[in-house]
Amino acid sequence: MSKRLFVIKIGGNIIDHPEGLNRFLERFASLRGDKILVHGGGKIATRMAADLGIEAKLVAGRRITDEPMLRIVTMVYAGLTNKQVVAGLQAYGCNAIGLSGADGNSIRVVKRPVNEIDYGFVGDILPGSVDADAIAALLDIGFVPVFSAITHDGHGQLLNTNADTIASAVAVALSSRYRTSLVYCFEKRGVLRDVNDEYSAIAEIRAGEFEDLKASGIVADGMVPKLHNAFDAIAKGVDEVCIGHADDLHLLRDQQFGTRMIR
Amino acid sequence: MSKRLFVIKIGGNIIDHPEGLNRFLERFASLRGDKILVHGGGKIATRMAADLGIEAKLVAGRRITDEPMLRIVTMVYAGLTNKQVVAGLQAYGCNAIGLSGADGNSIRVVKRPVNEIDYGFVGDILPGSVDADAIAALLDIGFVPVFSAITHDGHGQLLNTNADTIASAVAVALSSRYRTSLVYCFEKRGVLRDVNDEYSAIAEIRAGEFEDLKASGIVADGMVPKLHNAFDAIAKGVDEVCIGHADDLHLLRDQQFGTRMIR
Repeated sequence: MSKRLFVIKIGGNIIDHPEGLNRFLERFASLRGDKILVHGGGKIATRMAADLGIEAKLVAGRRITDEPMLRIVTMVYAGLTNKQVVAGLQAYGCNAIGLSGADGNSIRVVKRPVNEIDYGFVGDILPGSVDADAIAALLDIGFVPVFSAITHDGHGQLLNTNADTIASAVAVALSSRYRTSLVYCFEKRGVLRDVNDEYSAIAEIRAGEFEDLKASGIVADGMVPKLHNAFDAIAKGVDEVCIGHADDLHLLRDQQFGTRMIR
Repeated sequence: MSKRLFVIKIGGNIIDHPEGLNRFLERFASLRGDKILVHGGGKIATRMAADLGIEAKLVAGRRITDEPMLRIVTMVYAGLTNKQVVAGLQAYGCNAIGLSGADGNSIRVVKRPVNEIDYGFVGDILPGSVDADAIAALLDIGFVPVFSAITHDGHGQLLNTNADTIASAVAVALSSRYRTSLVYCFEKRGVLRDVNDEYSAIAEIRAGEFEDLKASGIVADGMVPKLHNAFDAIAKGVDEVCIGHADDLHLLRDQQFGTRMIR
């Protein structure tokens, strides 16, 4: 039986709070076995842009990554945040190695084609974008890859890519050689049966139950695409997708972390 | 006989000029065999600090890395510059992987003690600071490490460290398993016999000739510490130290690059 691999994604809600981030890093470091961290951006890039007098560009409500903004997210995501996370994990004895998709050609994407909207320097992950060999080689020599949400196109251009998508694509790519758990940490304790009760997380959802949960309104709004993407990753080979609160990460190995989605 | 390893350092004079940088990256990518790149900072960090209204602090003529400046150099050196260099090398088919000293715990330093001057968040490399096993493991799986001049103390603190010193320490640490060439690219074609003649570079200097060259005034001013550090690295195990112009990098394998210092 192949080894288990955890691919864990944290977003801005953790990155932006030093205490919560530190608590998460300690828990992540304590997690036994092979693991990969993917981190989103947080508010530092937006603040940095404002401080530099660079306006965040929106077209039809969508955020655009123009050239000045690409420089800022590269600096903040792949530089400041990534290195602070790596140094923090090293302090807890976790041999982290920080990566963008350019590093080791690990994630090679395609600049999003311009249709109605020109999103600018945004990269889309296609099948084959993730080099599982390169990432597995790093795991094999004992490193813990820590991905920022910066990728490249293979022709020298850096690109901004959604961190959730990176986490999913990395988990799918590595699922041929590991039993892969894809884990999303967010601000709730899982998929809640009652949105007003923080402790009403559904323990487990099977793919066949998804439609019923949507129909009954238990899974609604922002949770619908999250679960859709989760079951999509499972269909592509990921063993399980877990969604829950970062503070519960120590419960992951005992399958007590948030909501667990399986085939 | 052990394999040859090139440890090549480029400074701000190359980083700051896109055309020259691109030419260098193409030549570096073409260099056969095991190799490591170490890059300095350039003027982007200084400009970024000015744009953010952060003043560069000097005490007794020495540059101080205070907390706001550490954030900026981490963003610019380990983020923007490092990832642009890595993506540029990838475009030339060189499987670069960008690193700070925190990544893979590759360079673990000590914050400079405060004596007359508090340099702030500056890290000094001590014997044993460089993890040759970690770096060799990356070389063994086919990656080309690209170091920025950011390190860590192992307790979660990132630190600013001189890029020349990093290059030298990495070369010394790896000299027990490779025949190591330490290569400094600068704005001249080598140690010039006549400072007014760009093409008067001395081909080779042996350790025993250094004192005579100093006494005769041929090696003077800023070249004295450069050569002193070169022969120090050779005494500690480095096979040769080469100093010359980045544009001549293609001549390195034929021992026609700048000035070559040997035991």
